[in-house]
Amino acid sequence: MNKTGVKGKLFLVGLGPGDPGLVSSNALMALEQCDVIVGYRGYIDQMGDLVQSKELISMELGQELERAARAIDLAYAGRSVAVVSSGDAGIYGMAGPVFRLLFDRNWDGETPSLEVVPGISALQSAAALLGSPLMQDFCAISLSDLLTPWEAIRRRIEAAAQGDFVVAFYNPRSRRRDWQLLEARRILLEHRPGTTPVGIVKDAFRPGQQVTVTDLENLEALCADVDMFTTILIGNSTTYIHQGYMVTPRGYEEKLARSPNLSAPLS
Amino acid sequence: MNKTGVKGKLFLVGLGPGDPGLVSSNALMALEQCDVIVGYRGYIDQMGDLVQSKELISMELGQELERAARAIDLAYAGRSVAVVSSGDAGIYGMAGPVFRLLFDRNWDGETPSLEVVPGISALQSAAALLGSPLMQDFCAISLSDLLTPWEAIRRRIEAAAQGDFVVAFYNPRSRRRDWQLLEARRILLEHRPGTTPVGIVKDAFRPGQQVTVTDLENLEALCADVDMFTTILIGNSTTYIHQGYMVTPRGYEEKLARSPNLSAPLS
Repeated sequence: MNKTGVKGKLFLVGLGPGDPGLVSSNALMALEQCDVIVGYRGYIDQMGDLVQSKELISMELGQELERAARAIDLAYAGRSVAVVSSGDAGIYGMAGPVFRLLFDRNWDGETPSLEVVPGISALQSAAALLGSPLMQDFCAISLSDLLTPWEAIRRRIEAAAQGDFVVAFYNPRSRRRDWQLLEARRILLEHRPGTTPVGIVKDAFRPGQQVTVTDLENLEALCADVDMFTTILIGNSTTYIHQGYMVTPRGYEEKLARSPNLSAPLS
Repeated sequence: MNKTGVKGKLFLVGLGPGDPGLVSSNALMALEQCDVIVGYRGYIDQMGDLVQSKELISMELGQELERAARAIDLAYAGRSVAVVSSGDAGIYGMAGPVFRLLFDRNWDGETPSLEVVPGISALQSAAALLGSPLMQDFCAISLSDLLTPWEAIRRRIEAAAQGDFVVAFYNPRSRRRDWQLLEARRILLEHRPGTTPVGIVKDAFRPGQQVTVTDLENLEALCADVDMFTTILIGNSTTYIHQGYMVTPRGYEEKLARSPNLSAPLS
């Protein structure tokens, strides 16, 4: 509580891919209830009606800790603060820096109060547009080596290949990080054939959305077009492409063999 | 199109953990626009206001292919059909059987039309309640060996351990599958210490919600309480517990060391 006895509040709000239709009502309520919204400048600028009549604090990419610190200061001063992320605040999102700095400041776990409102993450947006690629076990790997050493990332790509996981690559490529995706592809090709399906989704559920279904072999030629608004899904050994959709079977084959009538129209 | 020229539509709708506040407006719109809602009986029975004035078709667990077949029949007959899943229809959800049966019936990719509306998946609900466990690479593994051989699951648990992934276990335990979680724990303990943080979330965002933070060592004693409405998150080598929260650092340590003032109140 601050000097006037008002208890501050922090909302960590994931707003999904950018389509207002994919925002939950709890997220809208958090934006409604708060006094201040803190977020990445490019994102805040696009929020339009969602942030009307609120105090806005926008900062640049890379200033995640600064954003968290500012939000926490305001919450300790008794304000109600929404820290917004695209996707899910709990997946590579703002929940990390906020918890970290709260702990550094010996937060008592109650004041300010804290609520994480999950949102649709990039792998889900990509999957919804590609077909049904995530019907078996999958993993998410960020190819950004700004905060994680490449050696740890490389080890995870290897493990994902060995475990035959469907793989979602976050942060696949930026102007300054242009070789990681090609290297990830090279590692996967040591374990999976060039015909392994690959889905590339850029600006999911946003204007200019691009959905490309290809394979590991042809991913190389398409890499130059990949940016930080792109998510890449790599199939496992059972994933296939049919009529432009990327599909990983769940394992119904055996049951279908026992009930062939399910595949035929019932009437 | 059916004989009267009406084009059917299939919506594959993920409704999240069960809290109406975590449903997106696109999902609500799909429920609004459809004529028929098809889903698991226990789930349809709980939907209340969301499904008023709609034709409801509910079936049992395990009848996923039957549900998909019925929905597809209706859509080919020109109806607008919402197939509902809890969580995300695209993650171990109804998108799988629906695509499978559409392909078996030589679907042309256009009629009936198809839209996947993603929802909040169990790993996200669990993470939002536990703290910030998913700030580094993670994987989702279903412990159900009804459709996937245990050998494939075992191989994925091994790989997840080797890659130092945070792990989310779906379908961890049911009355008939009571040993898989203990075996998964045993495999992880070959690679991770008994003090590795574990989050157990039961009935996330529902009445009776239970959130437990423990570790691999103590997971054994808590297993008996785990059911199909429980999701389990296992930390990686950097995950820690602080004030009851489960936190995986994103890797800001180096930056904080350069900017110690961020950890202190700014004013």
